[in-house]
Amino acid sequence: MPTERLPSRSENFAEWYNQLVLRAQLADYAPVRGCMVVRPYGWALWENVQNALDSRFRATGHVNAAFPLFIPKSFMDREKEHVEGFSPELAVVTIGGGEELEEPLVIRPTSETIIGHMYAKWIKSHRDLPVLINLWNSVVRWELRTKLFLRTTEFYWQEGHTAHANYDEAEVETLQMLNIYEDFAVNEAAVPVIKGKKSEREKFAGALHSYTIEAMMGDLRALQSGTSHNLGENFARAFNIQYSDQENKLQYCWTTSWGLSTRFIGAIIMVHGDDQGLILPPRLAPFQMVIVPIYRNNEEQARVMETVEQLKDLLSDFRIQVDDREGMTPGFKFNDWEMRGVPLRIEIGPRDVEAGQVVFARRDLPGRDGKQVVPLTAVIEKAQETLDEIQSHMLERATNFRDQNTHRVDSYESFKDVLDEKGGFIRVHWAGSSDDEDLIKQETKATIRCFPTDPPEGVGKCFYTGEETDRIAIFAKAY
Amino acid sequence: MPTERLPSRSENFAEWYNQLVLRAQLADYAPVRGCMVVRPYGWALWENVQNALDSRFRATGHVNAAFPLFIPKSFMDREKEHVEGFSPELAVVTIGGGEELEEPLVIRPTSETIIGHMYAKWIKSHRDLPVLINLWNSVVRWELRTKLFLRTTEFYWQEGHTAHANYDEAEVETLQMLNIYEDFAVNEAAVPVIKGKKSEREKFAGALHSYTIEAMMGDLRALQSGTSHNLGENFARAFNIQYSDQENKLQYCWTTSWGLSTRFIGAIIMVHGDDQGLILPPRLAPFQMVIVPIYRNNEEQARVMETVEQLKDLLSDFRIQVDDREGMTPGFKFNDWEMRGVPLRIEIGPRDVEAGQVVFARRDLPGRDGKQVVPLTAVIEKAQETLDEIQSHMLERATNFRDQNTHRVDSYESFKDVLDEKGGFIRVHWAGSSDDEDLIKQETKATIRCFPTDPPEGVGKCFYTGEETDRIAIFAKAY
Repeated sequence: MPTERLPSRSENFAEWYNQLVLRAQLADYAPVRGCMVVRPYGWALWENVQNALDSRFRATGHVNAAFPLFIPKSFMDREKEHVEGFSPELAVVTIGGGEELEEPLVIRPTSETIIGHMYAKWIKSHRDLPVLINLWNSVVRWELRTKLFLRTTEFYWQEGHTAHANYDEAEVETLQMLNIYEDFAVNEAAVPVIKGKKSEREKFAGALHSYTIEAMMGDLRALQSGTSHNLGENFARAFNIQYSDQENKLQYCWTTSWGLSTRFIGAIIMVHGDDQGLILPPRLAPFQMVIVPIYRNNEEQARVMETVEQLKDLLSDFRIQVDDREGMTPGFKFNDWEMRGVPLRIEIGPRDVEAGQVVFARRDLPGRDGKQVVPLTAVIEKAQETLDEIQSHMLERATNFRDQNTHRVDSYESFKDVLDEKGGFIRVHWAGSSDDEDLIKQETKATIRCFPTDPPEGVGKCFYTGEETDRIAIFAKAY
Repeated sequence: MPTERLPSRSENFAEWYNQLVLRAQLADYAPVRGCMVVRPYGWALWENVQNALDSRFRATGHVNAAFPLFIPKSFMDREKEHVEGFSPELAVVTIGGGEELEEPLVIRPTSETIIGHMYAKWIKSHRDLPVLINLWNSVVRWELRTKLFLRTTEFYWQEGHTAHANYDEAEVETLQMLNIYEDFAVNEAAVPVIKGKKSEREKFAGALHSYTIEAMMGDLRALQSGTSHNLGENFARAFNIQYSDQENKLQYCWTTSWGLSTRFIGAIIMVHGDDQGLILPPRLAPFQMVIVPIYRNNEEQARVMETVEQLKDLLSDFRIQVDDREGMTPGFKFNDWEMRGVPLRIEIGPRDVEAGQVVFARRDLPGRDGKQVVPLTAVIEKAQETLDEIQSHMLERATNFRDQNTHRVDSYESFKDVLDEKGGFIRVHWAGSSDDEDLIKQETKATIRCFPTDPPEGVGKCFYTGEETDRIAIFAKAY
């Protein structure tokens, strides 16, 4: 267990992030370039993300299934934009069982193609629609620059794949899943997001159009945190997914796909973390609270631990951990659990036992502000109340931070000034072309994160072209 | 939805199996040789298996994590028996991101090697032990003859990997996990199993020794249904997993691994299924009961569906499905759900509505024996009772079948006769060598499934060598 201080976020945000992931034991570097091992603490966090999403998927009629890791290479070539987008990133199996394969197999970078092949087989009639399937798996994209959770060669995610009778139903599904991602991000992870449409330049390779949720990290950069794609008839035509409609005429299906990955763990770390370490939202934290017993000798230990056992029983509906490690000071344990982001610490010493009380210490409010003496008789109620307060305080703080760092500009000059001097999100009227977008990216490294689906603001002048438009864009430098 | 009859089990067991898996929509063939798509109904069954096992793993202190799909090829060569066992079955990635890789990557056939590498990094002191990690993932073994669920190139499983301070602790863990597999098989899947040790010839490549649970399928062949390995110091020495003990001396760890896979779905199908289709144990069935409304016109439909809604509310604690598909006869629906193995069918027609009752039909007891009229007022209690009865009846029936088809022989002649004429398990005293075992396999195709861990039976003569021994072996032809 390391005791050295983390680099501060203002000193070196990237290094703060890397060291925190390793020290909090969320993940470790694997012996294969660009891959990670997700350690039990990180995986427990991901499992809580999975449960929160999975219950939302089920409530909206989706079912889980499993598709193979391998995709015949020829499948990738069938959808033109898809193959262009993914070809440079593929890992290819050329040998199986000691022999050269006749057709190389690609490790899935995403499953639209093999889904297309199977859906073409399964779907015959309008009565078979909609098909609403989700997969929890890992995918592989050969990345040059990798970073734990944010961009790894293999990463974990869910990919939803649905098939519908027409554009409208596919669009309703695409937006429904976008809303589910927003609901999850805001209400489970306390991560405020901006929902919107991707520009043509940034959309998914093979999609008609893509939607995204974008979050602001602690270093003011944007992170694309989940995407939902209306694939139009593109994959249906490439894989011949057809159904006979009520008049018995053959029609192409309209398909969607949507995904959220372990990248979101990166968002949780970078939105909430401080210089002491992680701050995990109570709804997703592997441990919602940790009990740290305090004693100086065996006699005190016996008395304290007796009350700790009672406390554990009282709080058994929560995800709770008792830190009864021997040979470590309470101070060391406090720091350790602060670094690992446990939302609520419960301290209990001999005097607390006598007084029938414990001390609550909130992770989101360091020092005295977050401390409270709680009588044992009120501990259950107070624990729930405190977790709720932490959860909503974390969302409020992150939302304020995001809003304070979102700027409006009306000229390209002020755009560049704001980017240089302040960073953050820049909200603008936008009537530019894809080429304009490219130029801005080359000059400033900022990209259009999305065209927000917020209520319209009315017409204004494009900060870049000067044209009148009612389209709003959010620009930012992004991960 | 197919209406043709399945081949009967006595006609062609293999074909019965294949067609049933496809028609019940448990799985489908993938467009990659030897791979399967696990469809939502099959995956829901696997998710229930996962939950049943996962809660047992957690209750015994294990935590989940995720390790990479890729293993550097050189890792496989470090443990001599391991590389010999797995080399012929490897899938190898030679191209990544458009370039030839310097060191090819193997798709994990199992993760002992990469686990070894990471544990060597994480484990320093006796205070770090035991390490108790489980992985839910898929692995790839290039198989020549494949069969859905039973042997596929990619399959889904859990692999537990633990590290301990000494032999005894590793052995206790190995046997604990074997007992958990038995408990799961018997009490969740209603699959009776024989627990025992594998012979040297059949043990895991790289293990000190292996344990197994073996089940008898409906065609009297054995299926290895879960294995637990004491790996000794083999992988610790190969990967240098060492800890400093209480005297500060470096010691090698003792490691274990244990796995249960989607192969177990094959066991559930082949132990319980009949000529009408699947029979799923209530504790694992995706749908524990299906309500089939019966009506001849709209007016009847309205009345019946009103009661169906009430019924659905009453039974909402169960995994329940209402079959309200239009344009299909009740008879068709009965057959369909019988084929898909739903344990309990609830029929409700206009006369039932009037009488305030429903009809229960048990999948495990076809015809009149399994039918019962149940007043609506008793439906919750009766549903639970009936599911419990089905669960225990399935176990009883499978146990009787297994016992009736387990034979004792005292000579090699009668061994061969029994194998030819009856099949099933053959229980013998055994003092033979690995070479003897090979010869018997060559001549009869039967292998030692295990040396059961049952209470000893006392000394007897080996059926093959004639030597006195107290070792018991179970021989059978196996999948």
